[in-house]
Amino acid sequence: MSSSDLALNQSALAEVLDTLGRGEDAALARLFELLAIPSVSTDPAFDADCSKAAAWCAAALREIGFQAEVKPTSGKPMVVGNCHGQDRGARVLFYGHYDVQPPDPLEKWITPPFSPQLMNDARYGKVIVARGASDDKGQVMTFIEACRAWLDCYGTLPVNVTVLLEGEEESGSPSLAPFLESHANELKADLTLVCDTGMWDSRTPAITAFLRGLAFSELTVAGASRDLHSGLYGGPALNPIRVLSELLAKMHDEHGRVTLPGFYNDVVNPSPKQLAQWRALNFDATAFLRAVGLRMSAGETGASVLEQLWSRPTAEINGIFGGYTGTGTKTVIPASATAKLSFRLVPNQEPRTILDGLHRFVMQHLPSDATVSFAGEGGSPAVGFDTSAPTFSAAAKALEAEWERAPVVVGCGGSIPIVESFRSKLGAQALLVGFALDDDRIHAPNEKFNLESFKKGARSWARILGALAEANAWA
Amino acid sequence: MSSSDLALNQSALAEVLDTLGRGEDAALARLFELLAIPSVSTDPAFDADCSKAAAWCAAALREIGFQAEVKPTSGKPMVVGNCHGQDRGARVLFYGHYDVQPPDPLEKWITPPFSPQLMNDARYGKVIVARGASDDKGQVMTFIEACRAWLDCYGTLPVNVTVLLEGEEESGSPSLAPFLESHANELKADLTLVCDTGMWDSRTPAITAFLRGLAFSELTVAGASRDLHSGLYGGPALNPIRVLSELLAKMHDEHGRVTLPGFYNDVVNPSPKQLAQWRALNFDATAFLRAVGLRMSAGETGASVLEQLWSRPTAEINGIFGGYTGTGTKTVIPASATAKLSFRLVPNQEPRTILDGLHRFVMQHLPSDATVSFAGEGGSPAVGFDTSAPTFSAAAKALEAEWERAPVVVGCGGSIPIVESFRSKLGAQALLVGFALDDDRIHAPNEKFNLESFKKGARSWARILGALAEANAWA
Repeated sequence: MSSSDLALNQSALAEVLDTLGRGEDAALARLFELLAIPSVSTDPAFDADCSKAAAWCAAALREIGFQAEVKPTSGKPMVVGNCHGQDRGARVLFYGHYDVQPPDPLEKWITPPFSPQLMNDARYGKVIVARGASDDKGQVMTFIEACRAWLDCYGTLPVNVTVLLEGEEESGSPSLAPFLESHANELKADLTLVCDTGMWDSRTPAITAFLRGLAFSELTVAGASRDLHSGLYGGPALNPIRVLSELLAKMHDEHGRVTLPGFYNDVVNPSPKQLAQWRALNFDATAFLRAVGLRMSAGETGASVLEQLWSRPTAEINGIFGGYTGTGTKTVIPASATAKLSFRLVPNQEPRTILDGLHRFVMQHLPSDATVSFAGEGGSPAVGFDTSAPTFSAAAKALEAEWERAPVVVGCGGSIPIVESFRSKLGAQALLVGFALDDDRIHAPNEKFNLESFKKGARSWARILGALAEANAWA
Repeated sequence: MSSSDLALNQSALAEVLDTLGRGEDAALARLFELLAIPSVSTDPAFDADCSKAAAWCAAALREIGFQAEVKPTSGKPMVVGNCHGQDRGARVLFYGHYDVQPPDPLEKWITPPFSPQLMNDARYGKVIVARGASDDKGQVMTFIEACRAWLDCYGTLPVNVTVLLEGEEESGSPSLAPFLESHANELKADLTLVCDTGMWDSRTPAITAFLRGLAFSELTVAGASRDLHSGLYGGPALNPIRVLSELLAKMHDEHGRVTLPGFYNDVVNPSPKQLAQWRALNFDATAFLRAVGLRMSAGETGASVLEQLWSRPTAEINGIFGGYTGTGTKTVIPASATAKLSFRLVPNQEPRTILDGLHRFVMQHLPSDATVSFAGEGGSPAVGFDTSAPTFSAAAKALEAEWERAPVVVGCGGSIPIVESFRSKLGAQALLVGFALDDDRIHAPNEKFNLESFKKGARSWARILGALAEANAWA
């Protein structure tokens, strides 16, 4: 059998899936080894453990046939591994991270966070409990196990694969963009695979194709040259908290739409087909809001909650402060008041344009005796993937074959800055497929990853690797 | 000469004023003794000094012919002294305080705060520099020196006088109201004299007849049951900072008027005559605002700055906080946001009625998915004195005789809670006359009291005491 037959031959894939099935216990034991390393990136006390986890990952890649090494950065090291696929195949770059969140508060764990346990869950059956089980070590290992099975069976992969694992995802990925830039040739790929997202629900796979962007600014309104006594000046004195409140109140109209000039000018709406798919999800918006103590959407009228989250931009006040904020009362009229603002953006909106609109809006509404300053501004654009690309369709079909349900093409209300880095530094489209669930308790005590997610996640990647090698995947 | 002639006889008064003139150096030496005692009431390290100051005051009163003693309270002691006046005379209660503000920052004093110095001031000539020189030891001693001169000359005072000096004015006067209540019979008087206010300017005396009241509340708006990630919930999630901003923005209309229901219902406006007097003052509102970096009034349209300060109620936001207030950005939608509000009230407004209006206003405008709570509410009503009372006219004439200018009847934008205590506990009207100037640097380094204020202050009280003994003063 020639290597070009690997993907097209369903019996070739069946052999890989069988191999995965036979090796489940050994795969779990390998994941447990990695989970036992407390690679907390935000705490320097765990620096050596981060290096240990990086070394473990590089060794695991070498063991299955990758050329892999640990590469230093000015922060935590990167793991880079390469493995050749079929001659004519394209190259994919798989991204994941080996670092984890701190496990605090320790006393809330039912089992020590770095002593992974297989436990019984009333809803899901067996679950893997450990810090990093879902975010992101369990997910990373679904991909490496899929590669292992392909290599075990055929000594090669369906496509060329580069694996890039970083150790700073939980501390803002400061080294990632510079590393992508300085290693652009080495990491250049036709498609980036990211396994750090979730499923729609435990039976429905998902591909994340819309990531909102972000623009942020800190707005300070100033009045008098010093704090004033509200008895001696109250009445004639301009109160910056009142001015700020009035500005913030004007920032939305009665339909929940943002009133900054030009705010919606560049918005590209999802296709009618996409919107229809979202409507068909029967997303339980009431339950989603009820889970956090809310009874109704406070968002834009005329848009569903999923649209409000995935395809509509927002203006949020993330923080506000001014005047006396201690216990009791102090009759002060403060000299200034500050609000921290952020804007979630959708594809085609530019952070700088949005912030310019904010500045124009504020200057337009500011009383002449107040002054204003903006600080700490920045942002990153939204990301929208081409859902009509052949690679996208190939991955979707592979997921459907495994889960017996078509994957949902979802958005993510949050931003994933690394995805923007891959796009801007390497010019590659990304495919975001992950097997986490909303209730995996990532970043919280008793983080878990369903054993089913781990097993079927590896099978999903095995299928996706095969599908990507199909002749028409890179059309 | 019978004692009833004292007041009417201008030569009797002239003798008293001569006595004051001859005794100026000795009077200054006595004031310096009192100023040298660091009676800081807010710092327990100075407890013994507070007691020492109280004892000094009681001794000073006894020396001139008062029956005086130091009376303990659960806080700092009170000084109470009594001296009989003419048989048919009424009784006045003089109030002052012997405690002072802390002197910090010490390094900003040009002379040690408790080593009083007579220094040369470019604008005012000789000034007394020390902590408490103006607030309130210097002012207290103007009255005691006036009594000394009357007693030196005639062995009696024109009216019966009770002196009450407290030692907690700079720390909120916690013992005053209970003391007035438990000693109501002993302290009962026809009029309370308070010497803790200022002049209109260095040549124009003032009687403070309008004191704004205060109502305060802390308003918290809550939304979701916990802080939310603005990416994962931004759009549909209610943002309590935005809700709070909208409430605060609606609290004033475009004319700067407060929109709480019934807010102006009970307002009693100053008489046309009073308003005309204020207009005649030619108050430089521009300079007043420019001194604190403002160019124009932000208050109610249609009211002058003096009216805005003295006779119009206000709604102020004294503090606001919610969400992330540290450095940088955090994309959070907070679970709650809080504003500290206070309302300056004018005569006839009741704090409870105003706060009820606030509650109704908030409930009326609150989105149904937000909840609200109010905390730390309280207040005290405004005080307006009867400027047509004969005692008021008598004092005004006495001041005019001394300063050769009619006193200005001023308001005070702030509240003086002790005045409300005298009214509610003793049922007495008060006459607020003081000789401080706006630039006396009270509560700040290098506090001063003009030597002229001290000398002419004592002469003013000598005249007022005489005038109050006139036959028609208590009509």
